[in-house]
Amino acid sequence: MKDATEMYIPTLEDMLAAHERIKPYIHRTPVLTSSYFNELTGAKLFFKCENFQKAGAFKVRGASNAVFGLSDEEARHGVCTHSSGNHALSLSYAAGRRGIPCNVVMPRTAPEAKKAAVRGYGGTITECEPSTSSREAVFAEVQARTGGDFVHPYNDPRVIAGQGTCSCELLEQTDGLDAVVAPIGGGGMISGTCLTLSSLAPEVKIYAAEPEQADDAYRSFKAGHIIADDAPETVADGLKVPLKDLTWHFVRNHVTDILTVSEQDIIDAMKLIWQRMKIVMEPSSAVPLATILKNRDVFAGKRVGVVITGGNVDLDKLPWMKN
Amino acid sequence: MKDATEMYIPTLEDMLAAHERIKPYIHRTPVLTSSYFNELTGAKLFFKCENFQKAGAFKVRGASNAVFGLSDEEARHGVCTHSSGNHALSLSYAAGRRGIPCNVVMPRTAPEAKKAAVRGYGGTITECEPSTSSREAVFAEVQARTGGDFVHPYNDPRVIAGQGTCSCELLEQTDGLDAVVAPIGGGGMISGTCLTLSSLAPEVKIYAAEPEQADDAYRSFKAGHIIADDAPETVADGLKVPLKDLTWHFVRNHVTDILTVSEQDIIDAMKLIWQRMKIVMEPSSAVPLATILKNRDVFAGKRVGVVITGGNVDLDKLPWMKN
Repeated sequence: MKDATEMYIPTLEDMLAAHERIKPYIHRTPVLTSSYFNELTGAKLFFKCENFQKAGAFKVRGASNAVFGLSDEEARHGVCTHSSGNHALSLSYAAGRRGIPCNVVMPRTAPEAKKAAVRGYGGTITECEPSTSSREAVFAEVQARTGGDFVHPYNDPRVIAGQGTCSCELLEQTDGLDAVVAPIGGGGMISGTCLTLSSLAPEVKIYAAEPEQADDAYRSFKAGHIIADDAPETVADGLKVPLKDLTWHFVRNHVTDILTVSEQDIIDAMKLIWQRMKIVMEPSSAVPLATILKNRDVFAGKRVGVVITGGNVDLDKLPWMKN
Repeated sequence: MKDATEMYIPTLEDMLAAHERIKPYIHRTPVLTSSYFNELTGAKLFFKCENFQKAGAFKVRGASNAVFGLSDEEARHGVCTHSSGNHALSLSYAAGRRGIPCNVVMPRTAPEAKKAAVRGYGGTITECEPSTSSREAVFAEVQARTGGDFVHPYNDPRVIAGQGTCSCELLEQTDGLDAVVAPIGGGGMISGTCLTLSSLAPEVKIYAAEPEQADDAYRSFKAGHIIADDAPETVADGLKVPLKDLTWHFVRNHVTDILTVSEQDIIDAMKLIWQRMKIVMEPSSAVPLATILKNRDVFAGKRVGVVITGGNVDLDKLPWMKN
């Protein structure tokens, strides 16, 4: 694990190297537009569809960059991680492509579809309780036992450089943007977005979108230091984890604002995207549109990139279903 | 209504005219591929995604061709139709774009999402019972009252010429095909496919895919004459209607075979497409993939176009949900 005293901040060169390194293993995902949502919001929205990404989420970018950046010696004992889901299956996918072992610690409450996908890519799961404290304890045991290289789901410069390739593509695919909105959990996607845009398009404002019920990043941003909650509850299961030193660095220095929305806002936005755009995406991915709908005045008249982070949802437990 | 004695068979020229006429009002929908489904089937599949089409279904092609082919005099009293759903909202959309009235007769059991969409486009709904006999009786009254031009959902040369533009695009978007599989209900999409492919790519085999529980086209094909059921029950709600003289002409002369699948086959294929391709599509659209999975020997090693006909599904009533 990285110590804060030796924190390495990834650079634009790291992101550009990741961009070349991971190309054979990922999709250049499409950017979709919707006249319906443009009318509804008064903005011009460009949806970067990482739900169509390999392994179903943007996290395969950072995971592939970490896995394929290892020397053969470093890769000898494989990789390991803890993750609420998408990083777990992205790392399993990347490790499988390289042919090395992957051990992941997942909360027992993670969607069954994600657990099945991890196993399908060849990853080995050890379950923990759905809290940060349990996850870290179980992971320490797994890491000691396997000796795998730890690829943190977000607080890792290789991962952040990889996630930054998403907004690099988005810039190439759109003809100028005023703002980008991405969800924030641990801050990996937002940090990668900050890394890329602060160098290549510093005029673009960066908004982080967060569930009210897991608003630790929002409170950290207002307080000026990291505030971490142990086990927040939200339908956006990818956004429950707290900021760490490296992602906090990017959030503090480059994020324009953090906007929060209710659980119902998230569910309504998710259902509306399914209905109108005919795409399957997970609750976390609906948080950006939910914030745009709630803060119409901030975005109206603007050209806005919206990151649809992933599509790995349990079709038997959709949030609008009655249990 | 057309009389069989004066049946006009649409030609390649009609399809090409439609192709030009409707361009401003429809999307050129993407063709998606999936390495997962290629491995699963042993074939190379090219999914023509009409779920991303305007009004959410391929039917907007035929409807737009009919509406924009009318003279101002002919368009004076608007248009009218009966439909289990997608033709209703496609005709409402096209009439709305032209600024003329649209009256539609829909079964009261049609998905709420489709009824709401018809009203959203400005169409006026009159409900009937979910049987062919009730639909035709209620429609006769509506047509007499409004004087609108009748645009049949499939047994109309303008509609078939319009649907034929879908496989015209598919040919342009793929580099040679061995077969195309499309669902069959009344036969509009299949007839348009036959119209286009029999002229432009006669080497491509045409397979129609049908639910076992609404297999009137299959039985017609085997018997050599139209067999119509009054009210078949299937989860593929767009495929309940019978062949008519014009669509029968194309089916009889150009279809290679009709393949049928069970309700469970359809639901399984639909869920698998949602899970792996991350697209929202309706049960009828899953029937082609279900037949390919069931008839692996017919399609393995082939390059196969698969028509995803529409995406207008009621998200509160997905077929794998427990009621």
